[in-house]
Amino acid sequence: METMTRGKLITFEGIDGCGKSTQMRLLERYLAERGFTVVPTREPGGTVLGKKIRSALLDGGEGSVEPLAELLLYAADRAHHVRRVIMPALNEGKVVLSDRFYDATTVYQGYARGFDLTLVNQLNELATGGLKPDLTLLFDLDVETGLKRTLKRGAGTGAEAAQPDRLDQEPMTFHEQVRAAYLEIAAREPQRFRVIPAAGSVEETFELVIKEIQNLLN
Amino acid sequence: METMTRGKLITFEGIDGCGKSTQMRLLERYLAERGFTVVPTREPGGTVLGKKIRSALLDGGEGSVEPLAELLLYAADRAHHVRRVIMPALNEGKVVLSDRFYDATTVYQGYARGFDLTLVNQLNELATGGLKPDLTLLFDLDVETGLKRTLKRGAGTGAEAAQPDRLDQEPMTFHEQVRAAYLEIAAREPQRFRVIPAAGSVEETFELVIKEIQNLLN
Repeated sequence: METMTRGKLITFEGIDGCGKSTQMRLLERYLAERGFTVVPTREPGGTVLGKKIRSALLDGGEGSVEPLAELLLYAADRAHHVRRVIMPALNEGKVVLSDRFYDATTVYQGYARGFDLTLVNQLNELATGGLKPDLTLLFDLDVETGLKRTLKRGAGTGAEAAQPDRLDQEPMTFHEQVRAAYLEIAAREPQRFRVIPAAGSVEETFELVIKEIQNLLN
Repeated sequence: METMTRGKLITFEGIDGCGKSTQMRLLERYLAERGFTVVPTREPGGTVLGKKIRSALLDGGEGSVEPLAELLLYAADRAHHVRRVIMPALNEGKVVLSDRFYDATTVYQGYARGFDLTLVNQLNELATGGLKPDLTLLFDLDVETGLKRTLKRGAGTGAEAAQPDRLDQEPMTFHEQVRAAYLEIAAREPQRFRVIPAAGSVEETFELVIKEIQNLLN
């Protein structure tokens, strides 16, 4: 019975500028209009504790955060987030949409920063308690277009956008590695992942999202 | 050659109110007067990042921090602290004094909160990179005296003391478990641990500290 009433966890992944946050907002509205109770959230920073962790991650106060400390901070954020936000919502039959989840750690800390993948996987497993998304949407885009979009966003009015965070300041090859790693892990779990080409307009991309969502929720 | 010029790491452990922080300050002065370069530090909170983590731990913003998140935050703090503060100082031949280190996690999160000790040990090993203190001073005291001292401190003028933090609000049995666990792990590593009876005056206790320190530094 429990598995029948359990909600769904849909995660949004991809390189900077891939449009995942925009697509998540559109999907949130789309599902709410159709009667679903939707819980939008994010990692890092999906809880009050997580916001403190996110702030520490983006500004360690001493130039940078030790890579291992960074990895453990992401795990701490996730452990709290899964138990305080995601699991309670799933147990109430809600649809949880998360802007990044543990795949981001696999890709950024494991593949791109070179942490031992066994360690990364163990910490992911520990933090999530074994919870996996029902569906992961990977918004795939060439790195150049992604960075251009990020810069364009930076030219806007938002205070956050005007001051790019540390993650946005990585060199080009880093973003290339991230994109390739996302595609690699998506290919390993074709049941869970859907790769959405994200170079088109917001509307075009959202049509592709809807198609995948209908399969899941029907 | 490297091991000859390497500094010493001395850690201070014990229940709340055992006097370890006072003893550490006295030892810092004592060693400085004798020509040693001393680096006093603490966990959590021995770095700028660590202070942010410490603040998140003591006030999660949502009543409490998930125990697993807490365990991972201590590990993150330690990973940064070891690599940014302790190891560089040891490599320069300095004497590092730390108010708590990984034994506190073993005792508080492992023994008292019931986390699997294998997991706790793995995270300690990961965070420290295998670094162990040259000497760990365990200030042993009955729980009642410790709590009375903590309350007395609370009656002082300091703003921090006037508002006891979350860790100080644990019930009596918790502190008893912590004391017993400290004694147990000390008995397992008699080479590294020295149990210092801490019920006497500050001066009496410090004389016992000096005796142990002289053995180490000669």
